[in-house]
Amino acid sequence: MADVAAKERRILVAIDEGEESLYALTWCLKNVITKNSKDTLILLYAKPPRAVYTALDGTGYLFSSDIMATINKYSNDVADRVIEKARKICREQNSDVKVEARVENGDPRDVICETVEKLGVDVLVMGSHGYGWIKRVFLGSVSNHCAQHVKCPVLIVKKPKPSVGSK
Amino acid sequence: MADVAAKERRILVAIDEGEESLYALTWCLKNVITKNSKDTLILLYAKPPRAVYTALDGTGYLFSSDIMATINKYSNDVADRVIEKARKICREQNSDVKVEARVENGDPRDVICETVEKLGVDVLVMGSHGYGWIKRVFLGSVSNHCAQHVKCPVLIVKKPKPSVGSK
Repeated sequence: MADVAAKERRILVAIDEGEESLYALTWCLKNVITKNSKDTLILLYAKPPRAVYTALDGTGYLFSSDIMATINKYSNDVADRVIEKARKICREQNSDVKVEARVENGDPRDVICETVEKLGVDVLVMGSHGYGWIKRVFLGSVSNHCAQHVKCPVLIVKKPKPSVGSK
Repeated sequence: MADVAAKERRILVAIDEGEESLYALTWCLKNVITKNSKDTLILLYAKPPRAVYTALDGTGYLFSSDIMATINKYSNDVADRVIEKARKICREQNSDVKVEARVENGDPRDVICETVEKLGVDVLVMGSHGYGWIKRVFLGSVSNHCAQHVKCPVLIVKKPKPSVGSK
């Protein structure tokens, strides 16, 4: 068994616009990454593919190029905002940790699994209910899929609900 | 967000007779539990319920009481051996960590989820393919089920395969 703790670990946190993934990031910074560690934190944001937006149209018509450009702009803005929010959390929780941010296009399930493989990630950290319920209908459970397909350890973090029922 | 790292964390590791869960335990000791931490490691072994053995009979006949007694004895011996193996790993990896062992009867999915809830566990650690493929046919994927149902963060650890294909 390789002693992962002794080397510099590459910890990938999959982030999205939902609060749960940023909670997962915070939890990871508090519980997995120790102060003065040599870990590298990789923040990964996956921009959902065009097919998802097309499917959301629901009329069967393709969007015009104007609408697509607007959607792309919106999508880039969201990515920037999410990454900035995540970087801020990293600075607040552990200012020493080395942070890399990546934005990739594609189905989050594929993007996450491929990036984990490509970068030789040691731990994948995710929220359990990322990507909102509408997208989840199309994409399926991202965390579920990744937990089954990546080879490295996967940490799935749920944001505790104040006092609402478990459903 | 609660600062879990600052308090004494209760980390539950679900163990079984497979090597993967013991690998998950080792990984957890190296990567999650820091030296001199106040964490308590709870080793949980779930003895599969009688129904599973009955189902394995496959003839439709119930086992006699003699056979059941032998099976129960075997099942207790397995539990003892697994717990002892796990305790040894704990001693080797981190002799300071406080360890509690529990053996519970029942479907591992229910046992794990209920124990996590009852003990107010902060992190659940599991191998991804526990309980062997035969039992998995009856029980379904334990890690998958628990990841969906427990409220605390779940760490799923896969034992790397030497160089066999991903299937």
